Amino acid sequence: MSIKRKKISVIGSGFTGSTTALMLAQKELGDVVLVDIPDNEDPAKGRALDMKEAGPVQGFDANIIGTADYKDTKESDLVIITAGVARKPGMSRDDLMNTNAEIMKAVTKDIVKYSPDSTIIVLTNPVDAMAYTVFKESGFPKERVIGQSGVLDTARFRTFVADELNLSVKDITGFVLGGHGDDMVPLIRYSYAGGIPLEKLISKDRLDDIVERTRKGGGEIVGLLGNGSAYYAPAASLTVMTEAILKDQRRVLPSIAYLEGEYGYKDIYLGVPTIIGGNGLEEIIELDLTREEKTELDKSADSVKNTLDVLT
Amino acid sequence: MSIKRKKISVIGSGFTGSTTALMLAQKELGDVVLVDIPDNEDPAKGRALDMKEAGPVQGFDANIIGTADYKDTKESDLVIITAGVARKPGMSRDDLMNTNAEIMKAVTKDIVKYSPDSTIIVLTNPVDAMAYTVFKESGFPKERVIGQSGVLDTARFRTFVADELNLSVKDITGFVLGGHGDDMVPLIRYSYAGGIPLEKLISKDRLDDIVERTRKGGGEIVGLLGNGSAYYAPAASLTVMTEAILKDQRRVLPSIAYLEGEYGYKDIYLGVPTIIGGNGLEEIIELDLTREEKTELDKSADSVKNTLDVLT
Amino acid sequence: MSIKRKKISVIGSGFTGSTTALMLAQKELGDVVLVDIPDNEDPAKGRALDMKEAGPVQGFDANIIGTADYKDTKESDLVIITAGVARKPGMSRDDLMNTNAEIMKAVTKDIVKYSPDSTIIVLTNPVDAMAYTVFKESGFPKERVIGQSGVLDTARFRTFVADELNLSVKDITGFVLGGHGDDMVPLIRYSYAGGIPLEKLISKDRLDDIVERTRKGGGEIVGLLGNGSAYYAPAASLTVMTEAILKDQRRVLPSIAYLEGEYGYKDIYLGVPTIIGGNGLEEIIELDLTREEKTELDKSADSVKNTLDVLT
Amino acid sequence: MSIKRKKISVIGSGFTGSTTALMLAQKELGDVVLVDIPDNEDPAKGRALDMKEAGPVQGFDANIIGTADYKDTKESDLVIITAGVARKPGMSRDDLMNTNAEIMKAVTKDIVKYSPDSTIIVLTNPVDAMAYTVFKESGFPKERVIGQSGVLDTARFRTFVADELNLSVKDITGFVLGGHGDDMVPLIRYSYAGGIPLEKLISKDRLDDIVERTRKGGGEIVGLLGNGSAYYAPAASLTVMTEAILKDQRRVLPSIAYLEGEYGYKDIYLGVPTIIGGNGLEEIIELDLTREEKTELDKSADSVKNTLDVLT
Repeated sequence: MSIKRKKISVIGSGFTGSTTALMLAQKELGDVVLVDIPDNEDPAKGRALDMKEAGPVQGFDANIIGTADYKDTKESDLVIITAGVARKPGMSRDDLMNTNAEIMKAVTKDIVKYSPDSTIIVLTNPVDAMAYTVFKESGFPKERVIGQSGVLDTARFRTFVADELNLSVKDITGFVLGGHGDDMVPLIRYSYAGGIPLEKLISKDRLDDIVERTRKGGGEIVGLLGNGSAYYAPAASLTVMTEAILKDQRRVLPSIAYLEGEYGYKDIYLGVPTIIGGNGLEEIIELDLTREEKTELDKSADSVKNTLDVLT
Repeated sequence: MSIKRKKISVIGSGFTGSTTALMLAQKELGDVVLVDIPDNEDPAKGRALDMKEAGPVQGFDANIIGTADYKDTKESDLVIITAGVARKPGMSRDDLMNTNAEIMKAVTKDIVKYSPDSTIIVLTNPVDAMAYTVFKESGFPKERVIGQSGVLDTARFRTFVADELNLSVKDITGFVLGGHGDDMVPLIRYSYAGGIPLEKLISKDRLDDIVERTRKGGGEIVGLLGNGSAYYAPAASLTVMTEAILKDQRRVLPSIAYLEGEYGYKDIYLGVPTIIGGNGLEEIIELDLTREEKTELDKSADSVKNTLDVLT
Repeated sequence: MSIKRKKISVIGSGFTGSTTALMLAQKELGDVVLVDIPDNEDPAKGRALDMKEAGPVQGFDANIIGTADYKDTKESDLVIITAGVARKPGMSRDDLMNTNAEIMKAVTKDIVKYSPDSTIIVLTNPVDAMAYTVFKESGFPKERVIGQSGVLDTARFRTFVADELNLSVKDITGFVLGGHGDDMVPLIRYSYAGGIPLEKLISKDRLDDIVERTRKGGGEIVGLLGNGSAYYAPAASLTVMTEAILKDQRRVLPSIAYLEGEYGYKDIYLGVPTIIGGNGLEEIIELDLTREEKTELDKSADSVKNTLDVLT
Repeated sequence: MSIKRKKISVIGSGFTGSTTALMLAQKELGDVVLVDIPDNEDPAKGRALDMKEAGPVQGFDANIIGTADYKDTKESDLVIITAGVARKPGMSRDDLMNTNAEIMKAVTKDIVKYSPDSTIIVLTNPVDAMAYTVFKESGFPKERVIGQSGVLDTARFRTFVADELNLSVKDITGFVLGGHGDDMVPLIRYSYAGGIPLEKLISKDRLDDIVERTRKGGGEIVGLLGNGSAYYAPAASLTVMTEAILKDQRRVLPSIAYLEGEYGYKDIYLGVPTIIGGNGLEEIIELDLTREEKTELDKSADSVKNTLDVLT
């Protein structure tokens, strides 16, 4: 009878976490709890207050708080994990893993304790391994633990294509499978400008360049920033996945999902085309792959498995 | 005949500048040029690229570039100045002044050179003195040099009132005159919740607390962040002023405006109620003040003048 | 766990009902069921399908259906009643009453049957009497039966004031009490442009003209259209009230609410300032009135009571 | 220096024209002039006023006026023609032609007189012939006279596909060539759900049904409404084309464009994939067609030519 706002907790109040909180609030998707460790609690509070003060000007109603106490996340509908050590220039994503896996476990315990019915979206890298860790730790069904990477990868791809063709980004689509970054498997034949396959509009050489730039897209930002990694496009990607769930939109989005035989893989989180809606991961879409694509995807899956082996 | 997108340059690619660039792009107000000094050019490029990559996901079309070359700002319709040394904990706003005034002069020279027909919005603190410096240096008519402070101050005030009354921020309004922060002159009698004067809804003591908290609003964020100052609400404030100009909305917004006798002051930039539209500062609204309000405003004007004296 | 879209039923598929359905869908507030009598079922289906086909272009996801079967409204979160005979030129609102009261009763029976936990917003005129009828018939608590009129009346007032002052409508507020139209009691002293009382900006004569035009605002549109009455602004008004409830915004909006002693009236629906949120009518705000305002409000209440007497 | 709002004139104040005016205003694309013949001037004024009164509630600033005097359209940036006799049940689109061609000529004279630098979008059916008539009458370059049909046809197609697959409309794309309605040439191989070719997701039979339903999409609405034709989705289609031009978005949209050899046709308006931006029709995209598609397109072009022969 009484209608309550949705509640979203964002774990990690760094640039990605706080930009995500802002974008969630801008869309009035719910109230936002920005969580960090006790040492960072005051900055989390500061960012939360600052963005809440943008509400009257931007016209959004959302309570946003910073906290180090998971009690404040109680009964969240959705939890986004951005916590973890950030990638620094020259640092491989694998280097991040051990620390981040421990963070995932600790964070997940608190999420499960206070929001046992929530859906979790994981951003922390290496995202396939981190989503796996959260999944195992949480005991949640696979529908409710999803990783983000493909929305971001395709966003970068779409940006580069729109620039190449001088067209609106609204009409460019991209399609990726597999892991994040270097392990990404782009399906160019499923990528279009206004519905026209890109292969008809861009030379193979230029397309190869664009794919390569997309693979290295995170590194390009890291290199430019000098200190820190991308956060605007990652935050936008988390926001659109959150919106698909909280508004039950059944969007077709690439997600890092738990596979139980799909595409020939088991007990692994890997980037695949999915349907995201009110139940979280509603469906995994299986596509026929070319031999070449399947080989690339195998390589990507191997890479994820190697990471997982280190973890276990 | 041919219709071109508006062009907006944001000087200073720090948190405020880059968050402003994001918000301008989200609203598709135009293409954005994020300018910084050569040492910061790569981070500016990195942030610009990162936020541009959010475009496909958030559905906005805007070219956003980072640069250290003012040639790239050529023929901007509007320029926002956020450059300057940021306030650190314990630092008075006056301490910032000398450095920032020099920055203003250098920046303004380049703006005038490349965008002689632009309108300039100044955020850099102390904003009254900085707007004055830009105005004098630019030779622009007063309509085209405006400072931001009241939109932010009232945003904070509205946030605190909405929390106090547990109401939507959409229905709370605030009203300030005078300088930024400590020199702010709140006009409580012109502040409402759903049109109802706040004095009827909140006790005088609590209102005094809220006013005091608003005055110290920037410091509160600085204290919490520990390192750096507010940027979300300032960016939102700059964005709404930009929108009012680029969409010719004739909004009633508090601005730091050049006075030529209004409210009894001359040759000074001070916070007053204004109408902002396609001509920039379209009008200054003069109100009858109570004796008490006038005294406070005099104090605020004196404070601004003292600052200016140091400058000249 | 599973998150479902909100469901909103709009009773009456005429211009107001269908424009409301469009606006609800544009804001993605939920799926929409547009209900009409069997004779109008096909047109209702046609309008629903047509507006649903606007979704891909405007970027909204909402299922919208037309129906004559209340089963389709099952478990609606919110129901909007626009059904009823429309006011024609020269027709008094009282003439509409008898027919419309019967329609209200029939409609309410079906709403209660299929959506016992819903909140109902009534638009049908004379709205005070119709809301009363729905309230009594439904057996719902007063929190969940609200009438619309003040949002529309103030929207018209704000439009006329914005035109008069050549200012953005965003910065104009208005305030009304009492019944709709002729019985409206405007509180000019609570109406502002940018927070500045209108009395300081507009002469008394012009303000009187604007108030008079607002009172006759519905009739002005009826007169111009020649055939039919206003629907765009009424639909927008219903949409903002719906949004306040479904997003639990606790907005300060004028509503037609059931009074139990407030303002000195009992067992009557009358226009008063209210707080609208997730519980529907969350609060009635009581204001001190001037003697003149109280006299006018008494007249308005008398008029409503006379209408009710005819009904009972 | 001074920035002015864009000005858009909508010729024809019927349901499509007035819904288009509303949607333009909701997006704050400019001020809107709703034009009709003297007999319909008052209803045009009524609708314009009614929707303007929705502005304060929906938060948009736009002046909207109704008029029968083309002087009021002076210096429009863009003109949308919806005027003409509406299709009634059982009426072929060809029946409409003679009357509508005369209306086009009269309307175009006035547009050219008052807004010689405007871009014109034509909706009136049969749209290929009407766009041709406006083009010839106006003497405008082909870039500045465009017809709408493919955006609407694909919107319907996307709606039906989204329903079929129970997916978000945001992720469904469609692609058509040729004329409107029966003459439409759908390119299923360029139509996708989340980038996946529809042929992989929907059986050929069901796809054929959906194509057939799309072809008859206008008639389906006409049949349901009983009296009048579709206007919500047509208005949304006109609005998105207008936005692409006024915001210089370079979107890839199907348009009715003047061909000078493209696809093997000359001196004819036909539906083709185009790039729409600040110059109006910026480019026509030529695709290789299968033999079957080319045959269908020839048929569509013949049908358009037959219509034109009747006209000349």
